Amino acid sequence: MTEKHRYCVIMCGGIGSRFWPYSRSSRPKQFIDFLGTGRTLLQMSVDRILPLVPKENIIIVTNEQYAPLVREQLPELTDDQILLEPARRNTAPCIAWAMYHIAARDPEASVIVAPSDHIITRENLFIESIGRGFEFVEENDALLTLGIKPTRPETGYGYIQIGRHIDGDFYSVKTFTEKPRRELAEVFVETGEFFWNSGIFLWRVPTIIRELRNNAPDVAGVFDRGIDMIGTPRELEFINENFPGCMSISIDFAVMEKAKNVYVECVEFGWNDLGTWSALYDTSPKNRDANVTQNCNVLAYNSTGNIFAVNGEKLIVVDGLKDYIIADAGDVLLICPKAEEQRIKQMVNDVHMSLGDKYL
Amino acid sequence: MTEKHRYCVIMCGGIGSRFWPYSRSSRPKQFIDFLGTGRTLLQMSVDRILPLVPKENIIIVTNEQYAPLVREQLPELTDDQILLEPARRNTAPCIAWAMYHIAARDPEASVIVAPSDHIITRENLFIESIGRGFEFVEENDALLTLGIKPTRPETGYGYIQIGRHIDGDFYSVKTFTEKPRRELAEVFVETGEFFWNSGIFLWRVPTIIRELRNNAPDVAGVFDRGIDMIGTPRELEFINENFPGCMSISIDFAVMEKAKNVYVECVEFGWNDLGTWSALYDTSPKNRDANVTQNCNVLAYNSTGNIFAVNGEKLIVVDGLKDYIIADAGDVLLICPKAEEQRIKQMVNDVHMSLGDKYL
Repeated sequence: MTEKHRYCVIMCGGIGSRFWPYSRSSRPKQFIDFLGTGRTLLQMSVDRILPLVPKENIIIVTNEQYAPLVREQLPELTDDQILLEPARRNTAPCIAWAMYHIAARDPEASVIVAPSDHIITRENLFIESIGRGFEFVEENDALLTLGIKPTRPETGYGYIQIGRHIDGDFYSVKTFTEKPRRELAEVFVETGEFFWNSGIFLWRVPTIIRELRNNAPDVAGVFDRGIDMIGTPRELEFINENFPGCMSISIDFAVMEKAKNVYVECVEFGWNDLGTWSALYDTSPKNRDANVTQNCNVLAYNSTGNIFAVNGEKLIVVDGLKDYIIADAGDVLLICPKAEEQRIKQMVNDVHMSLGDKYL
Repeated sequence: MTEKHRYCVIMCGGIGSRFWPYSRSSRPKQFIDFLGTGRTLLQMSVDRILPLVPKENIIIVTNEQYAPLVREQLPELTDDQILLEPARRNTAPCIAWAMYHIAARDPEASVIVAPSDHIITRENLFIESIGRGFEFVEENDALLTLGIKPTRPETGYGYIQIGRHIDGDFYSVKTFTEKPRRELAEVFVETGEFFWNSGIFLWRVPTIIRELRNNAPDVAGVFDRGIDMIGTPRELEFINENFPGCMSISIDFAVMEKAKNVYVECVEFGWNDLGTWSALYDTSPKNRDANVTQNCNVLAYNSTGNIFAVNGEKLIVVDGLKDYIIADAGDVLLICPKAEEQRIKQMVNDVHMSLGDKYL
C-alpha cells in the first residue's frame, strides 16, 4: 500500500489537570512548549509523523473549545482536517468518528492513532517502528497497539502482557492490566513479558470499524446512523446533534480488551507520557542541584530534587526546598511536595468549589 | 505655640531590600498597600499625622526616582512639599535639608520627623503621644526621640536606655545601643530601662540646626553655604549641585548620640517598623492555619507558619510548607524559610551579579 493511503489521527482534547496549574483547561499541556524547544507537544506530535504520512492525511480531533489553539499552532492544516467534538466522551467515540470520517474519504486507509501530549525522544526509532507497524496492519487483519519496553516499575501506567511471537517485534496480546500495585509492577518488569500501554494504535479503517461494530455496537451505531452524512457538508450538523449522545468509554475498554485480533509491537523510542510531575522530573535533564526547570530561571540555595514550571518568563529564587513541585501560571502558584502530587486533583476540585472556574 | 508652626517631615527614599521581591527598588515597601487596606504605608503615614499638623506643613523627602509615586499617592500635596534628593546620603543630610528648608519658611517651627514605612496600629495613642512630644520640645531645649516599650527581646532594633525622669513619659537618654545579641536583648527587656529606637524625632528647627552645626559641621556646612538659596527658586539647583557631596551618615550617629540635650518619650502605640518578614509575620493577623497572607488568596494544606505576599491578585495553593516566606512579584518568586531571611540580602546581590538590575 502506498503512503497516500496512510493517515494519522492525533487526539488532543484532554484537559491535562494533573499538571495544573502549569497546564490549564484553557491551555492544556498539549498546547504548551513543555520542553522549551519552541514547539508545543501537539506541534511535535505532527512533526514526528510527517516522514510517514502526507500532511493532508493528518486529522486532529479536539474539543471545540480548543479550535483556535489548534488553528494557531498548526496553520498548515485545513479546517476539514480538524474534527471538533461538541462534548468530551473519552477515546472510543473520538476514534470512531475519526475512522468513519476517514472511511468516507478513503475506505482502504490505514491509520495511526496517537495522543498529542506524549514525548518521544528518539524520532528515528519511532519512524522505523511506525513504518513496520503500518506494514503489519496492512498485511494482517490486526488491531495493533504499541507496547513500550518498561524501564522502571511504574504504577501509573497500564501494562500489556505479550503472548505468541508473530514476527520481529510483533506479538499477540495475552492480557491488558490496569495500573498495578508496586510489587506487581516490579514482577512485571522482571519477567520481560510486560510492556507499557502507550495509547498509540495502528489499524486499517475497515478492520477497526468492523471491530467497533462487533464490540461496541452502541458507539458504532451512532455513526452508522449518520453514515450518509459523514464526509458531506452535513457531517458537522450530524455530529453536533448526535455525538453528545454517545456513551463515554475508552477505546481500550470498548474494543482493544475484547477483540480477538489484537497485537502488540514492542518498541523502545524514548517514550514518556508526561502523566505525572514525578515522571517528568525523572525523565528531564537536571541541573547541578538535581533540580528540573521548565521555562524559568531558578536561583536555588539548599534546594534539590525540585521541578520548577512556569508559564511566562520568571525568576524563581528558592532556599531550603527539597523534592517539591513549584508551578506558576501567572494568576496561580502551586507549591506541593512531589510525593503528594496525587493530591493535586483534589486541590483542583477544592479550588473549583471555593473559587469557581476562574483558576481551572 | 499654635498648630500652624507645627511641621511633619516624612522620609520615604528607602529601597526596602529586606522585603525583596515583594518590595522592589522600583516600588519600595512604603509605596505598597502592605496591609491590604487600600492605603499604602506612605499614605497611612500622612493620614495619621493630619490631626496634628496642617496639610500644607507636611514635607516629603524622597529620592528623585520616586517623585512620580509620591505625586500619584499624595495628590493633595503641592510640588514644593516634596523634596527630591539627587542621591542617597542616609538620614542626616536628608533631615538637615528638610530642616533648613522649613527654617527658611518658618524659623520658629517645631517638627516631627518620621519614616514612611512603619505601621502604627493605635492611632489615638499616637496622636496623644505626638501632641505631648510637640509640647515638650516647644517648652524645652530638647531633641526628642520616641522610644517604644519593647514587647520581645528583638535583636534587630537599636535600644535607648532611659536616664533621669523628667516628667510623665519623658526621660533623659543614658545610652544608645545598636542591635544587641539575644542574651543582652533579654536583659534589656527585663530591666524595663530599655526602649526600642523608633527613628521618630521631634524638635524645634532652631534646636536641631544648632545641634547639626555643633555635632555634624560637615553636614550643616553644606546647607549653611546655601542658606541664601534655600527657600528660593534656586534651592533645587543648589541641592542638585551640593547634596551629592554630603557625607552619608545617619542622624543617630551624626547628632543624637552626641548632643547633650537628647530626651526620650516612652510610648506604646502598636508600632512595628516592618523591618523583617518575621516581624511582619509576628504582628500580623493570622488565619486558622497560622499563615499570614498579604494581598493573596491562599489554599493551604499541611502548611502553617508561612507568610504569603503577592503584588497583584493571585491564588496560591500550597502543600507541606512550614514557616516559609513566599513572595511573588510578577516576574520574581521568592521561597525562603523565615529562619533564613537574613540570607535574602545575599540572594538579592546574587541576582544582581548574575542577572543585572532587571529583577531588583
